Amino acid sequence: MEDRLTAISKKVIRFRDERDWKQFHDPKNLSEAICIESGELLEKFLWKTSDQSRIPDKVLVHGIREEVADVMIFLIYLCDTLNIDLLAAVENKLKLNQEKYPKEKARGTSKKYTEL
Amino acid sequence: MEDRLTAISKKVIRFRDERDWKQFHDPKNLSEAICIESGELLEKFLWKTSDQSRIPDKVLVHGIREEVADVMIFLIYLCDTLNIDLLAAVENKLKLNQEKYPKEKARGTSKKYTEL
Amino acid sequence: MEDRLTAISKKVIRFRDERDWKQFHDPKNLSEAICIESGELLEKFLWKTSDQSRIPDKVLVHGIREEVADVMIFLIYLCDTLNIDLLAAVENKLKLNQEKYPKEKARGTSKKYTEL
Amino acid sequence: MEDRLTAISKKVIRFRDERDWKQFHDPKNLSEAICIESGELLEKFLWKTSDQSRIPDKVLVHGIREEVADVMIFLIYLCDTLNIDLLAAVENKLKLNQEKYPKEKARGTSKKYTEL
Repeated sequence: MEDRLTAISKKVIRFRDERDWKQFHDPKNLSEAICIESGELLEKFLWKTSDQSRIPDKVLVHGIREEVADVMIFLIYLCDTLNIDLLAAVENKLKLNQEKYPKEKARGTSKKYTEL
Repeated sequence: MEDRLTAISKKVIRFRDERDWKQFHDPKNLSEAICIESGELLEKFLWKTSDQSRIPDKVLVHGIREEVADVMIFLIYLCDTLNIDLLAAVENKLKLNQEKYPKEKARGTSKKYTEL
Repeated sequence: MEDRLTAISKKVIRFRDERDWKQFHDPKNLSEAICIESGELLEKFLWKTSDQSRIPDKVLVHGIREEVADVMIFLIYLCDTLNIDLLAAVENKLKLNQEKYPKEKARGTSKKYTEL
Repeated sequence: MEDRLTAISKKVIRFRDERDWKQFHDPKNLSEAICIESGELLEKFLWKTSDQSRIPDKVLVHGIREEVADVMIFLIYLCDTLNIDLLAAVENKLKLNQEKYPKEKARGTSKKYTEL
């Protein structure tokens, strides 16, 4: 059975190709798009406290889902364009983070690794 | 066989829980983190032309992979915290985009749907 | 006596020209730089609560001052490149905001004008 | 005669106080707002080449002016809240940058100071 992310990525790529948009999808523009969509996601929580952000109402969750999807769609495009295996990259980064944030030192603190 | 994204998400969540970090992971902070990491991703292409960004050298690709992974890791955390199925959200958004950007109108143009 | 912003802007521009950097300073790249520096500013408050962010210690204030300056420097460059009078633009926007957020309706609420 | 930035800042602050918005204006939220507005500014140049961004048409310049103003307004609020003298911060940062980017080394290159 095909992997879910592989399957959905194919649909996302097909959407792009049916519109002949690959010509616009250089990594610089795609990274801008990720930044812009992240800003729209963040706007959903602007002026809210951290606690309030934990209990979004139905309308807000709906909006968040759309923005999260937009970020992900452009991540898929960027990885396709640069031939990056997104999940392998996550796995690699997780290994790095395990070294940067050893369990004993990092437990229960939000400090950056440079301050641990 | 388990889905790849499901499997890697479990590892990402375990990393968080072993450090007792869930307490910091409210949606407001996680969206900030996505924004910040997106900015670091974009920095990889700053001062480059769009064409230059298409042919990153080995060192640059390495850095891009790390930033792409960081954005994805925080997306996974946010979706876990808010109980969002990331790939279902992408599938939904893709359907919306198909209405906003009909093939005939959107082909070969980078215009926003509001200007089509 | 010369206006303070005019005077400092001249220094900022001279810094650029002494390095022959105007060639890199197109509006696309400058807007990217503003985004990237804003992300670095935001990082100073990541994982903090809103209340904690109100009482930054000396080291943090020092860092915030640097990031705020970076955002401002790129704003100055962008306005120079596009021939925008930054303070006139602020004055115009303030007038628009007065219409979008009438005192009676907007008092004491953080709602967006579209929801007032 | 009063300095222009001082004068406009007073108007910006009065706008806030007439709406009793200071309660929402902690540094964490204000930095989020700067990030979000920077993203909206960047969106004006998305899918454009660097060269195209140099020659915005009238409508685009109008939009850019509004976004630039939004970033500046929130910078003013942040500096007011944290008691930061924005222009003094710029002057300080410029001195630091002069050390990080000595003229001889930095001339004509867009390399980061860590690579000079």
